[in-house]
Amino acid sequence: MLTDALAGLAGELDDDLLVTDPQVVAAHAGDQVPGLSSGTPLALVRPRTTQDVATVLRWASAHGVAVVPRGAGSGLAGAANAVDGAVVVSLAAMDRVLEVNPADRYAVVQPGAVTATVDAAARTHGLSYPPDPASKDFSTIGGNIATNAGGLCCVKYGVTADFVLALEVVLADGSIVRTGHRTRKGVAGYDLTHLMVGSEGTLGVVTEATLRLVPAPLAAATLVAFFPTLESAGRAVAAIAADGLSPSLLEIMDATTIRVVDEAHRMDLDRDAAALVLAQCDTGPRAADDIAELAVRCEAAGAGFVASTDDPAEGEALLAARRAAYPSLERLGTTLLDDVCVPVSALPAAIAAIEGIAERYELLIGTFGHAGDGNLHPTIVHDASSADRAAKAFDDILTAALGLGGTITGEHGVGRLKAHRLADELGPAGIRLQHAVKAAFDPAGILNPGAVLPPLP
Amino acid sequence: MLTDALAGLAGELDDDLLVTDPQVVAAHAGDQVPGLSSGTPLALVRPRTTQDVATVLRWASAHGVAVVPRGAGSGLAGAANAVDGAVVVSLAAMDRVLEVNPADRYAVVQPGAVTATVDAAARTHGLSYPPDPASKDFSTIGGNIATNAGGLCCVKYGVTADFVLALEVVLADGSIVRTGHRTRKGVAGYDLTHLMVGSEGTLGVVTEATLRLVPAPLAAATLVAFFPTLESAGRAVAAIAADGLSPSLLEIMDATTIRVVDEAHRMDLDRDAAALVLAQCDTGPRAADDIAELAVRCEAAGAGFVASTDDPAEGEALLAARRAAYPSLERLGTTLLDDVCVPVSALPAAIAAIEGIAERYELLIGTFGHAGDGNLHPTIVHDASSADRAAKAFDDILTAALGLGGTITGEHGVGRLKAHRLADELGPAGIRLQHAVKAAFDPAGILNPGAVLPPLP
Ligand SMILES: Cc1cc2nc3c(=O)[nH]c(=O)nc-3n(C[C@H](O)[C@H](O)[C@H](O)COP(=O)(O)OP(=O)(O)OC[C@H]3O[C@@H](n4cnc5c(N)ncnc54)[C@H](O)[C@@H]3O)c2cc1C
Ligand SMILES: Cc1cc2nc3c(=O)[nH]c(=O)nc-3n(C[C@H](O)[C@H](O)[C@H](O)COP(=O)(O)OP(=O)(O)OC[C@H]3O[C@@H](n4cnc5c(N)ncnc54)[C@H](O)[C@@H]3O)c2cc1C
Repeated sequence: MLTDALAGLAGELDDDLLVTDPQVVAAHAGDQVPGLSSGTPLALVRPRTTQDVATVLRWASAHGVAVVPRGAGSGLAGAANAVDGAVVVSLAAMDRVLEVNPADRYAVVQPGAVTATVDAAARTHGLSYPPDPASKDFSTIGGNIATNAGGLCCVKYGVTADFVLALEVVLADGSIVRTGHRTRKGVAGYDLTHLMVGSEGTLGVVTEATLRLVPAPLAAATLVAFFPTLESAGRAVAAIAADGLSPSLLEIMDATTIRVVDEAHRMDLDRDAAALVLAQCDTGPRAADDIAELAVRCEAAGAGFVASTDDPAEGEALLAARRAAYPSLERLGTTLLDDVCVPVSALPAAIAAIEGIAERYELLIGTFGHAGDGNLHPTIVHDASSADRAAKAFDDILTAALGLGGTITGEHGVGRLKAHRLADELGPAGIRLQHAVKAAFDPAGILNPGAVLPPLP
Repeated sequence: MLTDALAGLAGELDDDLLVTDPQVVAAHAGDQVPGLSSGTPLALVRPRTTQDVATVLRWASAHGVAVVPRGAGSGLAGAANAVDGAVVVSLAAMDRVLEVNPADRYAVVQPGAVTATVDAAARTHGLSYPPDPASKDFSTIGGNIATNAGGLCCVKYGVTADFVLALEVVLADGSIVRTGHRTRKGVAGYDLTHLMVGSEGTLGVVTEATLRLVPAPLAAATLVAFFPTLESAGRAVAAIAADGLSPSLLEIMDATTIRVVDEAHRMDLDRDAAALVLAQCDTGPRAADDIAELAVRCEAAGAGFVASTDDPAEGEALLAARRAAYPSLERLGTTLLDDVCVPVSALPAAIAAIEGIAERYELLIGTFGHAGDGNLHPTIVHDASSADRAAKAFDDILTAALGLGGTITGEHGVGRLKAHRLADELGPAGIRLQHAVKAAFDPAGILNPGAVLPPLP
C-alpha cells in the first residue's frame, strides 16, 4: 500500500529526487547526536525547488506519512534522527546564495547553503554573516535556523535568530508562506519568522531565508588568562560583560578540560589552574587597547597568568587550546556532549555543580563553553560500563542548570535528546501552549514527530 | 443578564478594581489614533495582580465577553480602541519595577511600568533600557511589548523585541504561562516570547516582563546636515549605514517638514534644502571623532551645510527641529500620522513617492523618521473638506511602501487602522496562518477582537 503511495510521489517528482536505496536512505537517517539511535525511514527526497518540497508535503499530508527535514545532519540533539516509516527531506541540494544586497545589507539564500559559504559571499562585499557555529564549514543555514544555532561570536553579535529577517516556508499541508520583511523594522502581523527559528523542523520546512548582514569585522586581538579559582574566573567574565567592553569572543575551559587538552597536545597550559578564559576584540586599530582593558579586568579579578597578542596568527595559536577541547575529550572514550545555559553570574556555581556531579558518579566531565553567554558544554566521557552513570550525570546537569535559573539547552536544541525534560523547564501550561502552536501549523503531526515536544500527558 | 455576569466578576475582585462609571470607562475606551472612533465598553478593570488578570480572563471566557488590554493608551493604530460590550483591562496600576539585576543585566518589571521609569531604574546601576519611543515618558512596557515599539536609538540598539528575555502571560482562558529565559541564550521549545511581542493584546495579557539591560550609553556628539536633493541625503544615510559607523540616532526630515518647522519656530533652517539629516554617536570620548567621520560621509554625498557639536546642550538644540516636526505639522490642521518602513536604499524613492502623492491629492504631507532604519512617518495634514483625500493618500502611501519592498508598519503596529491592508503584505496563505496562531492562543476570539487580523475571507 505504502509502496503504491510512494510510487505516486515518485511520479510527481523529477526522476532522481526520490531515493529508496536502503543504504543511501540509512546514511541520511540520523544526525551527530551521541547515543540515540534513529528509526528506519521509507525514503529520502532531495528537492531542488520549493515546489518539490510542497509536492512532498502535500503527498505526506494526504497519506499521513511523517516527514523529517534535514540539512547537513550535523545536529547534536537527534532533531534530524528519522522515525520509522518517515520520508527524510534533505535540503542539501538547495544550496545557492541567490542574492547579496550590499546596499540594504541582506542576503537571500536557499536552506541548503552552507553557513561558511554564506559568510564568504557576504565578505566579497565587505560584509559578513556573523553566526559561527563550530560546524559552520558543513552545517546548513536551514539547520542553523531550525536550531537557532549559536557560536563563538554570539557574545558580541548574537545568535542565528538575530540575523533572520524573512523566510519562505512550506507548511505541513504543502502551502507556501512568506514571513517577515527585508526592512530593518516591521510589525505587520505576528512574528512567525522568529517562531520558525529554533522550531527544529516541526512547524514547517524553510525553503528560502533572507539574512541580515553586517560590516565585516576588523582584525582581532586575543587574550588568555589562567585563574586559580572558579570564582576569580567568574569575576573576570562578569566584569568584562558588565563594563560593555564588547569582546567578540569570551570562552572558558575548566580544570579537567585544561588537563585533558594539555595531555593530548602538550601546550604548556597551567594544569594547576581552575579555569582558563579566552577573549578576543575585533576592533581593528583599537583591538590592542581593548584587549589591554580586558587584561586589566582579568588581573583585578585575580588571574594568575595573562597573555595577549594582536598578531592574528599568534591569536589563532592561543585559541588552539579551546578548539582542541572537544576533540581531546573525545580521544578518551565515548562522549556525551551537553549544552546548558545559566545566567553569567552563575557560571562558577554551574561549573562547581558539574564538578560535583563528576565526583558523585566517578566520571570524567570536561566543561568548556561560551562564558560571555553563560553557555556551557559539559562533556561526559564514558565507556560501556559507565554508560548508565553518564546518562544520570547528563540528566543531573540539566537539573543543576534549571536550579541556577538556567535552561536545558543554550544552542543545540531539544531534539529527541531532551524532549522528556522540556516540561521541567516550561511547566504544564507552557507545554500545552507549545502543543497548541504545533497543532496550528501541523494539525496531523506529520512534521518531525517526536522532536522538541514530549507527548501531552 | 450581562449585568448579572458583571456582578459575578465584581464579586471575584477586590472592591475598587471594577469600574462601570460611564465617564471613567469612556476615558479608557480609545488610544491616540487619529480619526478612528472606538466602541462603548461595558466596564473597566484595573488589576493589581496577575491573579486579578487571570480572574477577569477566566470570567470573560466563561461569558464570551471581549477583553481589550490597555497600557497608557498612547498607541497610534487604534489597537487599544475598545469594542462595544468589551471589558477594558488597564494594566496601568501594575507599574512596579520588581528587580534590577546588574550582574546579569536584566530587569523584571510589571506591565504598567512606564518606559522611562524602567530606564531610570537601570541607570541607577550604570545600565540602561534602550528602547526609546517618543512616548517613553508615559507609554508602558506592556504596551511597548505588545506593539514592539521602536524609537530614535533603534538604529544602534534595536527595537523592544531585542530587549525582551522572558514574559509572564495570562492566556484567554485565564491560565498563566511563563515564556523565555533569563539567560542570554536558550532554545528550549518554540520562542513564544517573541511571538507575544508585537501581538497587540490579541494573544494574551502580559503581566510581567524580564528585560535585557545594557551598559548606559556614553555622552553623545551630534550632527545636522542639509542636502540639496533627496538622492544626496539617501547616499549619505546609505554610506553611514554601510560603513558600520554605528550612529545611535540617524533621522531625516523632508523639505515640507523643514519648512513647516521653520515657519513655526524660526530656527534658521535652510528652506531650500530637500532634506535634513540628523545623527548622533554616543561613544563618549570617541564621539567627536565618530561624528567627524559621519560629517565626511555627508559632505562626500553632497551635503550643502554640515554642523556638529560634542556639547550635549548644543546637541539637544540641534535635535529640536526633529522633535518639533510632528507638533509643528499638528498646528496646521488635523493630522493622519503614517508609519511605513522601506529598505534603507529606497528612502529617496519613498520620500519622492510621498511627495507625488501629496501633489496628486493636493495635500500637505510632511515626512520625517528614522532614516537609519528606513522607517518613515509621513504626516498628512487635512481638514474636514479634505478628509477623504487624506484617507486615500494614507492608503496610497502604504501601497507605495509595499511596492518598494517595504512594510505597512514599521513600529506603530497594525491595530484597527491597518488590519484591512494586512493581506496585501502577507498574502492569503499568510493570513490563514496568522489566524491559525490566533486560534491556538484564543480559540473563542475574546482577546482584542478586530485588532491586527482582518476577518477570514
Ligand atoms: C563538530 C560540531 C560542532 C558544532 N558546533 C556548534 C556550535 O558551535 N553551535 C551550535 O549551535 N551548534 C553546533 N553544532 C550543532 C549543529 O551543527 C547545529 O545544530 C547546526 O545548526 C545543524 O545544522 P544542519 O544543517 O547540520 O542541520 P541538521 O542536523 O540536518 O538538522 C537540525 C534540525 O534542523 C531541521 N532542519 C534542517 N534543515 C531544515 C529546513 N530547511 N527547514 C526546517 N527544518 C530544517 C532538522 O529537521 C533538525 O530538526 C555542532 C555540531 C558539530 C558536529
Ligand atoms: C506622542 C507620541 C509619540 C510616540 N512615539 C512613538 C515612537 O517613537 N515609537 C513607537 O514605536 N511608538 C510611538 N508612539 C506610539 C505608542 O506610544 C506606542 O505604541 C506604545 O508602545 C504604546 O504603549 P501604551 O502603554 O500606551 O499602550 P496602549 O496604547 O495602551 O496599547 C497598545 C497595544 O498594546 C496592548 N497592550 C497594552 N498593554 C498590554 C499588556 N500588558 N498585555 C498585552 N497587551 C497589551 C493593547 O491592547 C494595544 O493593542 C507614540 C505615541 C505618541 C502619542
